[in-house]
Amino acid sequence: LENIVERLLNGDRRALARMVTLIENEIPAARRYLAELHQYAGRAHIVGVTGAPGAGKSTLVTHLVREWRRRDAKVGVVAVDPTSPLTGGAILGDRIRMMELSGDPRVFIRSMASRGSLGGLAASTRDVVRAMDAAGYNPINIETVGTGQDEVEVMRTAHTVLVVCAPGMGDDIQAIKAGILEIADIFVVSKADKPGADQTVAELSMLLSLDPTRRQHDKSRPYWKIPVLKTSAIKDQGITQVVDAIQQHYAYLVESGMLAHRAQRQVRSEVEALVLHAVVNQLKAKTSEDDWQKLVEDITSRERDPYSVANELEEKIGLRQP
Amino acid sequence: LENIVERLLNGDRRALARMVTLIENEIPAARRYLAELHQYAGRAHIVGVTGAPGAGKSTLVTHLVREWRRRDAKVGVVAVDPTSPLTGGAILGDRIRMMELSGDPRVFIRSMASRGSLGGLAASTRDVVRAMDAAGYNPINIETVGTGQDEVEVMRTAHTVLVVCAPGMGDDIQAIKAGILEIADIFVVSKADKPGADQTVAELSMLLSLDPTRRQHDKSRPYWKIPVLKTSAIKDQGITQVVDAIQQHYAYLVESGMLAHRAQRQVRSEVEALVLHAVVNQLKAKTSEDDWQKLVEDITSRERDPYSVANELEEKIGLRQP
Repeated sequence: LENIVERLLNGDRRALARMVTLIENEIPAARRYLAELHQYAGRAHIVGVTGAPGAGKSTLVTHLVREWRRRDAKVGVVAVDPTSPLTGGAILGDRIRMMELSGDPRVFIRSMASRGSLGGLAASTRDVVRAMDAAGYNPINIETVGTGQDEVEVMRTAHTVLVVCAPGMGDDIQAIKAGILEIADIFVVSKADKPGADQTVAELSMLLSLDPTRRQHDKSRPYWKIPVLKTSAIKDQGITQVVDAIQQHYAYLVESGMLAHRAQRQVRSEVEALVLHAVVNQLKAKTSEDDWQKLVEDITSRERDPYSVANELEEKIGLRQP
Repeated sequence: LENIVERLLNGDRRALARMVTLIENEIPAARRYLAELHQYAGRAHIVGVTGAPGAGKSTLVTHLVREWRRRDAKVGVVAVDPTSPLTGGAILGDRIRMMELSGDPRVFIRSMASRGSLGGLAASTRDVVRAMDAAGYNPINIETVGTGQDEVEVMRTAHTVLVVCAPGMGDDIQAIKAGILEIADIFVVSKADKPGADQTVAELSMLLSLDPTRRQHDKSRPYWKIPVLKTSAIKDQGITQVVDAIQQHYAYLVESGMLAHRAQRQVRSEVEALVLHAVVNQLKAKTSEDDWQKLVEDITSRERDPYSVANELEEKIGLRQP
């Protein structure tokens, strides 16, 4: 473990795999290594892929990875699935295709399960991406299922977010409205060989045209018009266009200054999250479940009030002078 | 201000109004008063009303308040609208009806705007409800617009949550699927005089029947089957049934032990939120915007790493020994 950082930087895949495990298991040493790795990270283009179950995310990611390999990139994939720690949520065919890719020494694939508190998954994903980034993987794909708060938080780690919809999944489009629209950079309608693909494209385009935040308000500034692209895995169509769009989006982020702006915003929220995480850990360390039980009972029985209990806990963790 | 607690407990509406303002403006003294008030609170039935804009929430709340007044209750209303601080989101007619009610000395209505950080609105709402509760208002209605994270958090303060849908708002039902279903206790289809009301009732009933978490698994335990009720403000129909259902739900909560269980869970999350809020305040106090700017730049330029910066901030706020 001693020279894990050096080995990782030298391209040792086993060192990277080990680092990811340390991060997943929240081993304190991981932080020390990540602090060292930070200076070597920051070069990768981080691409998020999200969508409802069955939308065809894993298939799309597999094809994207192949296309990037053709373009001679060293590609990382983090598949985040809060629902299924074992299968990664992907169906068998996808898993087999993914495994074929993982035989390639310039492809690194890792699936991660959700555990612990809200925000924990986003923090672990950020750390795993940092390790892959330092190890020279670029681009790095993050694949998530669904559009819950956890997944949206994970997606905020990405520079470019792809939302995948299958034809005829009208429900999906409604779900997109609810949460994911604001973070989407590219829409991909998968399974374009199936009937209804063009209608789904039309519906998505309509949805986008209705969103006032997505309009070009200032003609003199760089502007990103969200494309709605079609892919067919069976006919092997549309993949190069998606990779082109991803690269164009990155160019837009650089040109518009958004890349730097986003990086700054993300750094601040990461530091705040680290501090809050430390607070939660301190609270856990200083307050047993029995202590909590007693405190909660004192408050519900009106012997004590929540404010004085909070003050007491703040003193315990050193936040407030007694 | 000195005897504000005493005056509030004696039913002085101006003292209550003053307290709400102190809470909204986050005046430190408010905490001291609320700590005193806590022992007198805990009697009110807290009823949340949520739904998409235009679903008819304000109209429903107005009619509910009238019905409760007929039943001789002293009624509180907190209208929370994160989007529109001025109008409270309600259309003029609703505002006028609400104002008519507010002339009644046994009705207390207050609208609150969202401000500050995520979770801040839920905390202020909880405190305002605590003050109204101590002042003897029961039930207390909380009305929110939309189903974002903030609103769902506010709704968690309520014992009984009503979700309002207007007929023919198919989109709404999809949005409900996404987030609000898990916290709904009663569905109300408003504007039942309009076409499509029965279909909306059927769709909602179908949606509920598909949710496995809502089935009665243990026949020996108290069980709440979410009702789907119709109201018509124009025809003045269905309101007594809704108030009856709200009271039945409260009886269910008491009988099943859920009321006590929820109270305990809420107390713990309130205390944790108070501590985290104190941390955020400490961070703000000890780190100016210029400091943040410098720290963020050091990290993005790779001179420093986020972990050591977080450690430094933790030391600053006393959480970690230097």
